[in-house]
Amino acid sequence: MKDISPYKHTVQYYETDQMGVVHHSNYIRWFEEARIDVFEKIGLSYKNLEEMGIISPVVGVSAKYKTMAKFYDTVVIDLKFVKYTGIRLYIEYEIKDSVTGDVRCTGQSEHCFIDREGKIISIKRSFPEIHEKMTQHVEAEA
Amino acid sequence: MKDISPYKHTVQYYETDQMGVVHHSNYIRWFEEARIDVFEKIGLSYKNLEEMGIISPVVGVSAKYKTMAKFYDTVVIDLKFVKYTGIRLYIEYEIKDSVTGDVRCTGQSEHCFIDREGKIISIKRSFPEIHEKMTQHVEAEA
Amino acid sequence: MKDISPYKHTVQYYETDQMGVVHHSNYIRWFEEARIDVFEKIGLSYKNLEEMGIISPVVGVSAKYKTMAKFYDTVVIDLKFVKYTGIRLYIEYEIKDSVTGDVRCTGQSEHCFIDREGKIISIKRSFPEIHEKMTQHVEAEA
Amino acid sequence: MKDISPYKHTVQYYETDQMGVVHHSNYIRWFEEARIDVFEKIGLSYKNLEEMGIISPVVGVSAKYKTMAKFYDTVVIDLKFVKYTGIRLYIEYEIKDSVTGDVRCTGQSEHCFIDREGKIISIKRSFPEIHEKMTQHVEAEA
Repeated sequence: MKDISPYKHTVQYYETDQMGVVHHSNYIRWFEEARIDVFEKIGLSYKNLEEMGIISPVVGVSAKYKTMAKFYDTVVIDLKFVKYTGIRLYIEYEIKDSVTGDVRCTGQSEHCFIDREGKIISIKRSFPEIHEKMTQHVEAEA
Repeated sequence: MKDISPYKHTVQYYETDQMGVVHHSNYIRWFEEARIDVFEKIGLSYKNLEEMGIISPVVGVSAKYKTMAKFYDTVVIDLKFVKYTGIRLYIEYEIKDSVTGDVRCTGQSEHCFIDREGKIISIKRSFPEIHEKMTQHVEAEA
Repeated sequence: MKDISPYKHTVQYYETDQMGVVHHSNYIRWFEEARIDVFEKIGLSYKNLEEMGIISPVVGVSAKYKTMAKFYDTVVIDLKFVKYTGIRLYIEYEIKDSVTGDVRCTGQSEHCFIDREGKIISIKRSFPEIHEKMTQHVEAEA
Repeated sequence: MKDISPYKHTVQYYETDQMGVVHHSNYIRWFEEARIDVFEKIGLSYKNLEEMGIISPVVGVSAKYKTMAKFYDTVVIDLKFVKYTGIRLYIEYEIKDSVTGDVRCTGQSEHCFIDREGKIISIKRSFPEIHEKMTQHVEAEA
């Protein structure tokens, strides 16, 4: 089981809004940043997947905002693959301040897999090697 | 009871991603666009609220993506204040294609109210007139 | 010669930054919004162009910021096709406040045309009808 | 003279558009990322400056796009303070692919300094220590 270092993001000026904090929509983008980073680290590069014709849209997303990240804070984004069915993937996120450890945001996302024509793919059936890696990662985390 | 026309948004090029559809984070921004529009229409301008020292952060948000909006589609964003406690506000959203009526996305958001120092405000106690408008709007929709 | 009504944009909350004004990068996006709108109005829909295999990347862009647009301001974006060579298109922009007429920003952009493989296209040679419309529009504005 | 390591940015999925490359507006945001990083490295943290009441809006920006950055590329953003008058600062940028060294984009930005009320500040007159650091950095680069 590979150790996966958590993903870090430094808050940019353009991510703040006139409330003086990070606009809430950016946390949804940070979920994606961290997700792509973890895929890469477990040997499933998004770029490669898309070149193979596997596209993974977000089917659902949710976030609970606890405290507010500010400009130039560094946040740590942890995520866990909580369930994987061969057809759908469920991920949970926790975003913390890198210094204080304060939880800024928690969230979830749900993903399916489609081909270039937009048709649902069963990873389990069509890409058994990728299915294997995904399954291993989910089990390693459990 | 005032009739509130639904909010429309035309999909911009910069809102698409390399999947060839709207990036999912933008729907969260469209929820905000529509929310601010409705606040305005019921006589509660966000701008005025902020000038009065009332800031309304998003405490939670969720979205379910049904079908994908594409570049230059026009979407209609309907929303409903489903619950208002005097301290928290709960809103539900439905985003449809303006031509086909296909549902693109449904969602929810939850809001609190804070002052400029970040302290929680009870609208009910501190701003009875605003409380009144909010309550009326929730009841009118029920 | 068709009369082209100027494009309007209402400033969204997510377009502000912690300076309390619109983040400067958004004006570049508004240039695009207005450009796409004008293309549509002169019968050259971006969507159709892309379906025909004509993609129009931005080769250069510049902006001068005069005064600052704020949340919920409505701005008017005027643009002019200043030069069109059959291969390149040069556009100038002026963004004003819709109420006061104060100039917020002026700018320019330069565009080429490529096919799906990324090869430069001469619109003049490969798409004479589109070339015609473009030329007419530039002349009508002169 | 401190050596300043160039700033790196990995292209995010949400920064791409349906052309399959990075949307041009994001390069303007990357200029900002790199600028804030350099300020930090020369001991002039943006965060501290803003806390001292010094805000530095972008007065002008321009970019020339040479080649297209793609999803998950890492780009290196080099910048140089080319001129500093005590009142205005002029910066030049070069964005290259971190692997191939291909130039993606070059650009410039111009900045003034204002206080919280929006009044122009002369850094030279009002903040001599900051003026000193800025001047040193410009000279070190010359």
